Amino acid sequence: NEAGSSPIAGSSPIAGSSPIDRYLTQLHARYSSLNDGAVATYIPELAKADPSWFGICVATTDGHVYQVGDAAQPFTIQSISKPFAYGLALEDRGRTRVLEKVGVEPSGEAFNSISLAPQTGCPLNPMINAGAIATTSLVNGDTAEQKVRRLVEVFSAYAGRPLTVNEAVYVSERETGHRNRAIGHMLRNFDILSEDPTSALDAYFQQCSIEVTCRDLAVMAATLANEGENPVTGERAIKRELVDSVMSVMMSCGMYDYAGEWLYWVGLPAKSGVSGGIMAVLPGQLGLAVFSPRLDARGNSLRGIQVCKDLSTELDLHCLRVPRSGRASLRAVYDLSKVRSKRVRRERERRLLDDVGRRAKIYELQGDLMFAATEVAIREIAEADPVIESAVLDFKRVSQVDRSSAALLVGLAEEWRQRGKTILFASLHQHRTLERMLAEKLDAAGVPPGSASFADLDHALEACEDGLIARRNPGRDTAHVVQLQEHDLFRGLSAAGVALVQTRMRLTRFRRGETIVRAGEPADDIFVLLEGQVSVMVELAGGQAKRLATLSPGMFFGELAVFRHTARSADVCADTAVECYALPKRELDALGEAEPGLRTTLLENILRHVSDMVALLTAEVTALLEG
Amino acid sequence: NEAGSSPIAGSSPIAGSSPIDRYLTQLHARYSSLNDGAVATYIPELAKADPSWFGICVATTDGHVYQVGDAAQPFTIQSISKPFAYGLALEDRGRTRVLEKVGVEPSGEAFNSISLAPQTGCPLNPMINAGAIATTSLVNGDTAEQKVRRLVEVFSAYAGRPLTVNEAVYVSERETGHRNRAIGHMLRNFDILSEDPTSALDAYFQQCSIEVTCRDLAVMAATLANEGENPVTGERAIKRELVDSVMSVMMSCGMYDYAGEWLYWVGLPAKSGVSGGIMAVLPGQLGLAVFSPRLDARGNSLRGIQVCKDLSTELDLHCLRVPRSGRASLRAVYDLSKVRSKRVRRERERRLLDDVGRRAKIYELQGDLMFAATEVAIREIAEADPVIESAVLDFKRVSQVDRSSAALLVGLAEEWRQRGKTILFASLHQHRTLERMLAEKLDAAGVPPGSASFADLDHALEACEDGLIARRNPGRDTAHVVQLQEHDLFRGLSAAGVALVQTRMRLTRFRRGETIVRAGEPADDIFVLLEGQVSVMVELAGGQAKRLATLSPGMFFGELAVFRHTARSADVCADTAVECYALPKRELDALGEAEPGLRTTLLENILRHVSDMVALLTAEVTALLEG
Repeated sequence: NEAGSSPIAGSSPIAGSSPIDRYLTQLHARYSSLNDGAVATYIPELAKADPSWFGICVATTDGHVYQVGDAAQPFTIQSISKPFAYGLALEDRGRTRVLEKVGVEPSGEAFNSISLAPQTGCPLNPMINAGAIATTSLVNGDTAEQKVRRLVEVFSAYAGRPLTVNEAVYVSERETGHRNRAIGHMLRNFDILSEDPTSALDAYFQQCSIEVTCRDLAVMAATLANEGENPVTGERAIKRELVDSVMSVMMSCGMYDYAGEWLYWVGLPAKSGVSGGIMAVLPGQLGLAVFSPRLDARGNSLRGIQVCKDLSTELDLHCLRVPRSGRASLRAVYDLSKVRSKRVRRERERRLLDDVGRRAKIYELQGDLMFAATEVAIREIAEADPVIESAVLDFKRVSQVDRSSAALLVGLAEEWRQRGKTILFASLHQHRTLERMLAEKLDAAGVPPGSASFADLDHALEACEDGLIARRNPGRDTAHVVQLQEHDLFRGLSAAGVALVQTRMRLTRFRRGETIVRAGEPADDIFVLLEGQVSVMVELAGGQAKRLATLSPGMFFGELAVFRHTARSADVCADTAVECYALPKRELDALGEAEPGLRTTLLENILRHVSDMVALLTAEVTALLEG
Repeated sequence: NEAGSSPIAGSSPIAGSSPIDRYLTQLHARYSSLNDGAVATYIPELAKADPSWFGICVATTDGHVYQVGDAAQPFTIQSISKPFAYGLALEDRGRTRVLEKVGVEPSGEAFNSISLAPQTGCPLNPMINAGAIATTSLVNGDTAEQKVRRLVEVFSAYAGRPLTVNEAVYVSERETGHRNRAIGHMLRNFDILSEDPTSALDAYFQQCSIEVTCRDLAVMAATLANEGENPVTGERAIKRELVDSVMSVMMSCGMYDYAGEWLYWVGLPAKSGVSGGIMAVLPGQLGLAVFSPRLDARGNSLRGIQVCKDLSTELDLHCLRVPRSGRASLRAVYDLSKVRSKRVRRERERRLLDDVGRRAKIYELQGDLMFAATEVAIREIAEADPVIESAVLDFKRVSQVDRSSAALLVGLAEEWRQRGKTILFASLHQHRTLERMLAEKLDAAGVPPGSASFADLDHALEACEDGLIARRNPGRDTAHVVQLQEHDLFRGLSAAGVALVQTRMRLTRFRRGETIVRAGEPADDIFVLLEGQVSVMVELAGGQAKRLATLSPGMFFGELAVFRHTARSADVCADTAVECYALPKRELDALGEAEPGLRTTLLENILRHVSDMVALLTAEVTALLEG
């Protein structure tokens, strides 16, 4: 029984909890009686920790936190402060200044090794104490107090709540930190610290004494996983472009002389602290934290290491094992022969689009567009059949477009334009960088704004259809007024027949913006559009309006509810000044008494129209499900 | 002009090439005149390399290869062989045996450092020469020839073409490799090699002399990125579960004493060789390779390092900067009030489903389901409104489900079952592990097979609808035969009227499996189903059959093409023995001459039915576009 033997799905369910909560509860139970190792005692305050404390937290990049055990127990952050302080120094001083003072090469030695480069005296990396003290000295602020205020403020942004310094631990650290004082003076000797080391050391001791919980550490890790934006509060804790650097030093140096094995067995950028915390990041996905003060010989939380190993193995969290992102970026691909805009076309244009619709392809994109995902989309488009004249890219479900992807997409659009083809972009409002880069490129090429970027897919499709039609009917002139004789509803009727029906209808006019039909009202009339344009609109669950159809002169509307014997299901609004006839159902019936042939022809015209709608919608549903 | 200043979208397009080809061409041009560094001369054969050779290749995990410059120039693989040989040793001897002989901790020293652990004599890692020689000795084979045959075979699987050893280089290596011979004897001294080192060294020298091209290296890297399966040939080169380990040692040790900086600036597991190759992996996404024999002081390809730095920076390829995979795994979420199976229901059941459809939710999943993606889906489901009774998970677009995700999904399904709710799985045929784990769990619970897993979404939806209906109409009995008087088409007709229409129709019978209507045929008849079941089927572009509708007694079909004046657009097949009446359109017309009221009623019944279809399809399209 494979499912039963899995550590994940094995136990009997706890009603109402998720399988992930259940898994973490089991994992906690698995190690809660592991009583090897000992609480740190090098400063008296740390020795007060209860060795049985044990918490596990996982925070996702969309802000959900799973927690089990002592997830709310405060403790001092200690060395786990180092990567966050390093990120802050990069932000405050810039990469160049920081790299002049602190390297990024692993020392292969223990946490308290001094490890200074032979010539320059630079600490090899910011995760050893020497590098961390130098890093803290680079945080903005003239005094230790100013630096600490800044550190606390930024750490609080990572954690999503106000953090504070534990004064007792700070005083204890300050009074016993002789080795760190020695390091401070060595750094001063090499001019890595540019002034008396007391101030940097004071700030460093306070930084290590900031109090966090296991939950805080998981959220802080998830903030790194989420490119520097706290996924719970939405607050930015560090610039996006610095996050890789912070995680890189965690990866190569975060676990000291255990780095190679940690990468091999756990595979996550991580940092541990002597108070018993371990924090690890799975980029793009989650942050995790374990808190248990019993330490192993290397000074790492003993249960923490075990839990991280099991989590990584059992949930497949190694950062080098990641989903293949490429294909998942293409949500759907179909062409205009199947899916159309909600602009209803008359028969001639509809037939034309039936013929040439496969020359326009629609690509619905999804997720974060980084190189690999964008490459797949670009290749699909670049390798498209040469008959393709237009492509529509819909960004509605795209969560993020990085700069390189934006540049590639704009480059593709420009190349198509130069070859006489078009790429239309839909739903860019969440993607300002791409929108701006596209606008600049179009502007440089003298292309009118608004010809390549549309509010939503529907309007991009409409523009795409218009383009296909215009290229084939350059002299086409859309009728703004249609006479009753040419009207779809009256196909096959004699002039006398039309005149007879006309006597049963009443002429009505609407101003632009007026509502002609309102959802929920009883349905009595079929409307015959002579002049102007109307749109059929529904309100979606989210409250936005969505158009179901836009109609032109020569078309009719309102027939569905009349023949379904239901109330109106949508609003119909006048997009322009509108003139139309209303044909009440009872008049149609009365007409039938006198002229059954007339009524039959009208019914068959309506039936043909509605049957055409079924055919179009069926093709659309099939394309959306299969595309 | 931001777009113009980007290194990616800046240049004028080359017609017909993709923006990625253009970018790589520019990148190649940027460094082709960088003439610093020198070709390796430590063996005479390598000194023959043309210093101007320069190739760049990128291979994606779906098997596309971009290449520019000397991508087809053969050269010997040298140290880039080390990670592949390490993977092979893990596969041949198992992780435990290999870790006893070779560590995974970076040495922080140069490639030719001996770096043996003080007590055991174990080489610190398999990327330094000492570790690589020990690794080669662990590859299966009693003789050097047998080991080399195995190495060549496996390297060829990575490259996707048969590779061979360059004899001249091999002989040259063998004759000049004194330092490596010294290492071999040191390893023998510590019993890391268990026999005379000559055989292991002979195999190692040949392994380093296997000839590859820049393109080969990119494909080999992409094979690692693709979890060990060659993305061009589909052949597996290494077990999936060993790939992380190979990439982990590349990451921590692949660039020797440059590992920390490489991770910081490039951020990809990589390996370089003295013949001028560099290969790097972006897991899940791509492999890249650069070939240029001019080396820097550390023995790395000078242009290669520059190209990798630029590629990583400009295309954002740092392996710790990855797309947030979570949300992209949910392609669409909607409920049964909007999207239904293709089983057409009569009015009573349709109304019931309109009322209770929101109690069943559909989740279309997409991409690779690993923990973070699955977690999002599971949380959505676990947090669903308590009124939800059923959930349908569609795996049609899921490319892969890892074991931990499968276990979590089965655990969720089991928990729902125990709470009296159901989770239905659709389209599992590509996901055998999940399918098997689910079947075992159901079997253990005594649930009949086939009640939880369905061939496609459509059939899962049908089962879900049946469940909702059955729970509300436990005694319901589907009519297998419907009398004409109760038929949808004859609603509102008197018995005499029905009898009159009956005289115009012809009774027809079909055997199970027979085709009643064939796509492309002229459309004359409307069919009135009395007994049995029919399905409307179309053939998709890919050749598979898709059902558009399944109809029961009391329903009619064939009306759409008749009133659209088109040929039949789909096949209608008898799913069982079928009895139906065929009503020719000309008979309906003739009936109208005599009994206009009868014809009008029939037309209005058809119109009502077709209008209902429009309403259902419109809701479905809206849900599919917005869901």
